[in-house]
Amino acid sequence: MKAEVIVSLKKTVLDPQGKAIHHAIESLGFRSVTEVRQGKVFEIQLTGIQDEATAREEVERIAREVLTNPVIEEFSFILKN
Amino acid sequence: MKAEVIVSLKKTVLDPQGKAIHHAIESLGFRSVTEVRQGKVFEIQLTGIQDEATAREEVERIAREVLTNPVIEEFSFILKN
Repeated sequence: MKAEVIVSLKKTVLDPQGKAIHHAIESLGFRSVTEVRQGKVFEIQLTGIQDEATAREEVERIAREVLTNPVIEEFSFILKN
Repeated sequence: MKAEVIVSLKKTVLDPQGKAIHHAIESLGFRSVTEVRQGKVFEIQLTGIQDEATAREEVERIAREVLTNPVIEEFSFILKN
């Protein structure tokens, strides 16, 4: 089983890197883009876990305890087979 | 319209950062994780584009020309309303 965890900055936190990318995109002539925010994605391979509920619990703990800084970031994840 | 672009290292490219995170996760007692790979995610806000085909084309060009290093990375994206 695989999990895809997305960690992004909270909406209230400034994202200077996203802003820089937005400016780069604009200067290349893409006029339809109004905002860019950058985050991180983690692809996690799990083995030995059969049921989805256990996998979900495990991934949520990993995301919360290791991958996310709860002061400025939030996470979401999906499971894939 | 929003687009979520995921940029990840090609399968054939080593990912030392992912490996370091894997070790950290293991040392915290999560035994079911066998691999971690890290990538980047970009949330792009588009305005003034009505149809999905145009949005798809625009996002694909941005991903290809700005966000991805084609030598070592690949991208995928989804559109959200």
